[in-house]
Amino acid sequence: MLKLKRIPVFHATYPLVYIHENCADIPAHGLKSNIKVQLHGALRPFYGTAVVTSSEQIVRPDEIGVSQPAFSDLNMPEGSLLSLMPAPAPASLDSIRRKISGDILTHKEQEKIIEDIASNAYSDLEIAGFLVANASFYSPQEVLSLTQALLETFQPFPLENKDDIIVDSYSVGGLLGNRTDPIVLAIILAAGMMMPKFSNYAVTSYSSTVDVMSTFCAVDLSEKDIRRVIDANKGCLVSSANFRFSAANNRLIGVERGLGINTFPQIVSSTLAARKALGVTHVLVDIPVGPFCKVKTMTEALHLKKLFEYVADSLGIVLNIALTDGTEPVGNGIGPVLEARDVMNVLRCSADAPEDLREKSLFIAGRILEFNPAVKGGEGYRQAQHLLGTGKALEAFTKIIFDQGKVSAEALAPLCREVLAPKDGIVGGFDAAHLQKIALATGAPRDKGSGLDLIAKSGEEVQTGDLLYRIYAQNPNSFAFANGLAEGDSGVSILPPSA
Amino acid sequence: MLKLKRIPVFHATYPLVYIHENCADIPAHGLKSNIKVQLHGALRPFYGTAVVTSSEQIVRPDEIGVSQPAFSDLNMPEGSLLSLMPAPAPASLDSIRRKISGDILTHKEQEKIIEDIASNAYSDLEIAGFLVANASFYSPQEVLSLTQALLETFQPFPLENKDDIIVDSYSVGGLLGNRTDPIVLAIILAAGMMMPKFSNYAVTSYSSTVDVMSTFCAVDLSEKDIRRVIDANKGCLVSSANFRFSAANNRLIGVERGLGINTFPQIVSSTLAARKALGVTHVLVDIPVGPFCKVKTMTEALHLKKLFEYVADSLGIVLNIALTDGTEPVGNGIGPVLEARDVMNVLRCSADAPEDLREKSLFIAGRILEFNPAVKGGEGYRQAQHLLGTGKALEAFTKIIFDQGKVSAEALAPLCREVLAPKDGIVGGFDAAHLQKIALATGAPRDKGSGLDLIAKSGEEVQTGDLLYRIYAQNPNSFAFANGLAEGDSGVSILPPSA
Repeated sequence: MLKLKRIPVFHATYPLVYIHENCADIPAHGLKSNIKVQLHGALRPFYGTAVVTSSEQIVRPDEIGVSQPAFSDLNMPEGSLLSLMPAPAPASLDSIRRKISGDILTHKEQEKIIEDIASNAYSDLEIAGFLVANASFYSPQEVLSLTQALLETFQPFPLENKDDIIVDSYSVGGLLGNRTDPIVLAIILAAGMMMPKFSNYAVTSYSSTVDVMSTFCAVDLSEKDIRRVIDANKGCLVSSANFRFSAANNRLIGVERGLGINTFPQIVSSTLAARKALGVTHVLVDIPVGPFCKVKTMTEALHLKKLFEYVADSLGIVLNIALTDGTEPVGNGIGPVLEARDVMNVLRCSADAPEDLREKSLFIAGRILEFNPAVKGGEGYRQAQHLLGTGKALEAFTKIIFDQGKVSAEALAPLCREVLAPKDGIVGGFDAAHLQKIALATGAPRDKGSGLDLIAKSGEEVQTGDLLYRIYAQNPNSFAFANGLAEGDSGVSILPPSA
Repeated sequence: MLKLKRIPVFHATYPLVYIHENCADIPAHGLKSNIKVQLHGALRPFYGTAVVTSSEQIVRPDEIGVSQPAFSDLNMPEGSLLSLMPAPAPASLDSIRRKISGDILTHKEQEKIIEDIASNAYSDLEIAGFLVANASFYSPQEVLSLTQALLETFQPFPLENKDDIIVDSYSVGGLLGNRTDPIVLAIILAAGMMMPKFSNYAVTSYSSTVDVMSTFCAVDLSEKDIRRVIDANKGCLVSSANFRFSAANNRLIGVERGLGINTFPQIVSSTLAARKALGVTHVLVDIPVGPFCKVKTMTEALHLKKLFEYVADSLGIVLNIALTDGTEPVGNGIGPVLEARDVMNVLRCSADAPEDLREKSLFIAGRILEFNPAVKGGEGYRQAQHLLGTGKALEAFTKIIFDQGKVSAEALAPLCREVLAPKDGIVGGFDAAHLQKIALATGAPRDKGSGLDLIAKSGEEVQTGDLLYRIYAQNPNSFAFANGLAEGDSGVSILPPSA
């Protein structure tokens, strides 16, 4: 038996289990590979990935080290005795093997897989296998089963005063800018509809709605505070980082991020299960379609639309899907502070407000307003326009910032470089993948004031030396790296004037 | 810039990069997930998975820790300055996304993916995605391209005195026992054919050919010693653990093991590329077919056979594929020492030798002997029988053990329990998955003398209390756990006598 030790490292999706190379309980050869181990002696079998060390400062041969947050989850004191063995493959992995061979999974099989994922019997690799096997071939019924199985794992977040209609929106990713969420929320709350919004920090991206919101106010609220905000505003825009709504869903999302591949079954099941669990009744799904978006063609978009509709219908969620233009960035700012600036400019009806961001927000808000049976078809957009134009949306937004806990404004980063047109011509388009790389290099979202400010628009005529965009950074090293990337390739194509 | 520090932990497939939670170079929120980071400042960009720590004993905020063997590979002194950023997804991941949508990959795309895998630009998760995407749908041409791309990554291991025919065998896994390799090698070398055999330690299994061989002699030899053994014997049976024949292949195999799913494209490409790189000209592939084997049905087996044949043919490897019965364990022993005992009993023509292991070894060796054009069809088996019966195979095996470096014999583990028939009846069959679990629980292959000794055979009549198998273990705790597993379910079914 080995003595439990807390290892002060964080590895969120799957525990790291530290073992000394002289530990008698395990073959030394095997552990240098990607091996999954099982610990017995706790309430339930406990799983993790083995990490072998030669340093007794990390663990001694008679100790077993467990990373955070897994150690806290074990809820056992250091020194507790545990035994170690290689973990057998979970029985439900056989279903995944069958799935890879092209079989359809039953509801029971999906349930068992999700249960095994929730109990950590699946390693990250095994989950990646599940996600990709599901994505290569699936029936709509399978995605519904997956969504239902996932839904069962969600902890409820009961609201006291619920409206009959509770709305939310979801935007499939990949489009630069596109920070409509705060504006849409402001308009919807100004209209008196209920919209409790839980969202995530950016992990592999330069920004997120939560990162932008965090430049205005607190976003990591306690359950009690969230209820208070919702009671007072009929909505909120907070981080879900502190909540474990569903261990299985968190693991699926965590692995999907690491994998860098958003699969349609996972987008549909996670989005709808999480909203159903919160009591959301109506969802507007924005699917931007463009070469750098997750959804690249109209064929793919229609496929995803039908999948969303089939599952939502079976769950009793009313859905409205907007296929939107994803060929151009929306708004000017890329990075938390710069996007926050755009959001406020729209809400304040400032002359500097990016027209495309304002239009898209009005369009989405309009569609959501029409979830209200009293609002006639075509009236939503005009109502949204009115709520924005009269300052009512700004007022609702100001109140929610105050209620979540206003923070002092973040400044734009001090280091700035202008990227200029290298020749005369027409702005052809934006390479979103490269611009995303440059934005990440600036230090965003860690440095909230860092990022890009896109000035030129597609189709505009430019002369040599005209400003295309600005790079902002806090850290000189990040600044140099971002400049280097932009030097090699600005990410903005200039077509010949005659074209 | 951060100061490089060596972290004395081993994580073979993908480096762990330790970062202090107060490090200024990265967003704290993101790092608690499965994020891939990139380090600049070394000869090439360097990739790893971020692990965040709150302990300055592991790394300080101005340091960056790198696990082994990656730190050694970096070949930079501690304190070297590196900069850190989230790693962008490798460009070739787009090909994998397309593959998931059902597209065919070109040879160029496969090459780029393998190149990115070799340079560690792919995380383990991304490799898992690649393996499963490939396995769900593939054309034979794609598997050939993958094999060719993989082959280009192999370092040569040139042999001085090469025969025109160099043979090897490969057995698709999952069958209990089945330790034919050492016997086949002995017969082939006794016949004077060339058979240099590199194999792997068991990682997630209770034993392997290398684990069995290690009970007789050294298996981790230097390149020089391996050449000496091959020169003197025309063959060897050594571990490939010390060799980096191909970084890409090692990573693919490492991830596939962690994933627990053997995909056909990966079996074919790894097996054939590794043998082609060694100069092997003729390969016998044994595909056991049975409910607990990797290949479960004859349809699957024929599919795999054709895939093997297509790729081998294009590479210029002569192939012979044997579809064998995988419904019953082969031999009695399960675990290194017990399997070594069976192997020696067969080689010594002892009365205790398991008949099935002897027959299967003769069958495979016979097929390999017929790769020699001078051996008439049907003659191979009789020649193999002769070489075994006259003691020439034993002689060849004794010599190779001596030349690799004989070790003192490992003893059978001291703790023993007999598992008995709970009722009268006929032995119906063996649940290989459960017996594998029990064998792992005994401590095999870490404790070489631990494992199972299968006594009863399928179809045999047994009375209540008759011996089905014995459990051997070294460690009392492992013994208790294995007993518990066998108590719940012996893994041997007893059918009614009338059936």
